[in-house]
Amino acid sequence: MKLATLPDGSRDGWLVVVSRDLKGAASAGKLAQSMQEALDGWDEIHADLQALYEDLNLGKAAGSFRFDPKVALAPLPRAYQWLDASAFLSHGVLMQRALGLEVSPQVDAKPLMYQGGSDDFLGPCAPACFPSEAHGIDFEGEFGVILADTPMGVSAEAAEASIRLVVQLNDWSLRGLAKREMASGFGFLQAKPSTAFAPVAVTPDELGPAWVDGRIKLPLNVTWNGETFGNPDGGKMDYRFGQLIAHAAATRRLRAGTILGTGTVSNADAEAVGSACVSERRALDAIAGREPTAFLRYGDRVRMEALGPDGQALFGAIDQVVSA
Amino acid sequence: MKLATLPDGSRDGWLVVVSRDLKGAASAGKLAQSMQEALDGWDEIHADLQALYEDLNLGKAAGSFRFDPKVALAPLPRAYQWLDASAFLSHGVLMQRALGLEVSPQVDAKPLMYQGGSDDFLGPCAPACFPSEAHGIDFEGEFGVILADTPMGVSAEAAEASIRLVVQLNDWSLRGLAKREMASGFGFLQAKPSTAFAPVAVTPDELGPAWVDGRIKLPLNVTWNGETFGNPDGGKMDYRFGQLIAHAAATRRLRAGTILGTGTVSNADAEAVGSACVSERRALDAIAGREPTAFLRYGDRVRMEALGPDGQALFGAIDQVVSA
Repeated sequence: MKLATLPDGSRDGWLVVVSRDLKGAASAGKLAQSMQEALDGWDEIHADLQALYEDLNLGKAAGSFRFDPKVALAPLPRAYQWLDASAFLSHGVLMQRALGLEVSPQVDAKPLMYQGGSDDFLGPCAPACFPSEAHGIDFEGEFGVILADTPMGVSAEAAEASIRLVVQLNDWSLRGLAKREMASGFGFLQAKPSTAFAPVAVTPDELGPAWVDGRIKLPLNVTWNGETFGNPDGGKMDYRFGQLIAHAAATRRLRAGTILGTGTVSNADAEAVGSACVSERRALDAIAGREPTAFLRYGDRVRMEALGPDGQALFGAIDQVVSA
Repeated sequence: MKLATLPDGSRDGWLVVVSRDLKGAASAGKLAQSMQEALDGWDEIHADLQALYEDLNLGKAAGSFRFDPKVALAPLPRAYQWLDASAFLSHGVLMQRALGLEVSPQVDAKPLMYQGGSDDFLGPCAPACFPSEAHGIDFEGEFGVILADTPMGVSAEAAEASIRLVVQLNDWSLRGLAKREMASGFGFLQAKPSTAFAPVAVTPDELGPAWVDGRIKLPLNVTWNGETFGNPDGGKMDYRFGQLIAHAAATRRLRAGTILGTGTVSNADAEAVGSACVSERRALDAIAGREPTAFLRYGDRVRMEALGPDGQALFGAIDQVVSA
């Protein structure tokens, strides 16, 4: 099943079911007005949403209309929780080198994860506005999951049953502000402005064979001003989602609608497959003795999409222009 | 005006207006079903809520009933954003000493602030459940504000116009998990389980002369198992709320319902007035050469309240028992 949120003038937008090919949509209005409402009542309405989705795919849904992913809001325009991991250790290694920090990532250690701002997510084609080019504007291409209520202390084995939806996102970052915030011990705040999301959230079954071992085994295709920047594979995540969820829920329960990101998708052969953020490329530049790739400027355009089994963009595309 | 959220079986509860003496309440149902709805539409409904509040204080509100603060939920049972500062530098100095870190707090530097989890706040008398006593269970008595939509780049001077409500809270902390999370650079996650709130949120005018210089000039009275633990004064905050809001909004706008905390209320004469968290007391113990005060155990009870101009608890009381 595929779901999206369209603008209707309200803060939470209007929940629609989207056809598998992203061409058509139908209002979920009678079942849930908003994505959060659907997640709050998932067990009661899930089957009816699924039936509507199947009708829509067969061209039998009453009142269906053409879906325009460009006007979609983030699937959750605002959420009660946004947690972002750093679950590709090759990214951590490169970033630590780039920041001049000690390199010591270990899969057997606790995953790195930060609490992000969730009050104001960006739609897939919304302008990405930042106060200054001097802050080191960077993108971070990621996948993520949206969770059901999850008990405190859930095991990694049981945790994946909490996954309701899969999403694709860009965790915009201001690198020039990150180092001081990391050194403070309090973590990212100004360095992590609003995150953007691809238009469509999908149930895990939509990934078919790409949903495997608690991971999303798909290349994330990133272009910057129309040129390919990277196609790293989400399947090479060093933790399963279950491990990440268990880490987040170790000392508190997580409530429905919690979004959990993978961190920048990154592969060990980044020189070959490219990267999903500029900082990682800069680290590669430094290691290779190249001039550092510059961060983004106003007017730059970033597009991210992941192609599903049918060769179509599974979640739709993020396609944003950086703006003042 | 005073507002609270009562349980009704829903995740967001039921918004009520509470009388100044906290004895009576009336449903805000026709104006806003939930606190978030009231904050989303504040400009449109504020005057009507205020009129209902005045009727309630005069005993003229139809359908009013006895208010029981013990059953109240947090004013926002879940919120889209929770930011917590460390705005009392005397606390920072003592905590840094206790953690063996370099001491370098400066009022002219950027304030310390972390992004907290906001999906699952605790009501004032809900049990405070933690997975292990070995994690160093600690309370942090604080004040906070709830904001309207606030633009990116707002000045400290303009920012206080965004303050809609004032709250009192306990930012429960697991000290044994904090040091590693601070060292990771990603900030607090497992070390900061669900935060608890006093039952009543109030408009700033309710503080009378205690709302001064962008600060809450009231002692926060903290008792631990019935014994006074501290009465530090919120008026001695080293930043005004406007400075804290401007810091939070430097690279992104803040949406309605954002909660911003002061961090542990702390005064330079902590040996005399006491503290609002155990860690600070332990730092004082170390400096004085005393045995360290132990962290909390299951069954311990923590009460926090701030008395208003009339000698009554302005926000009601937080009164929780620590539990497995």
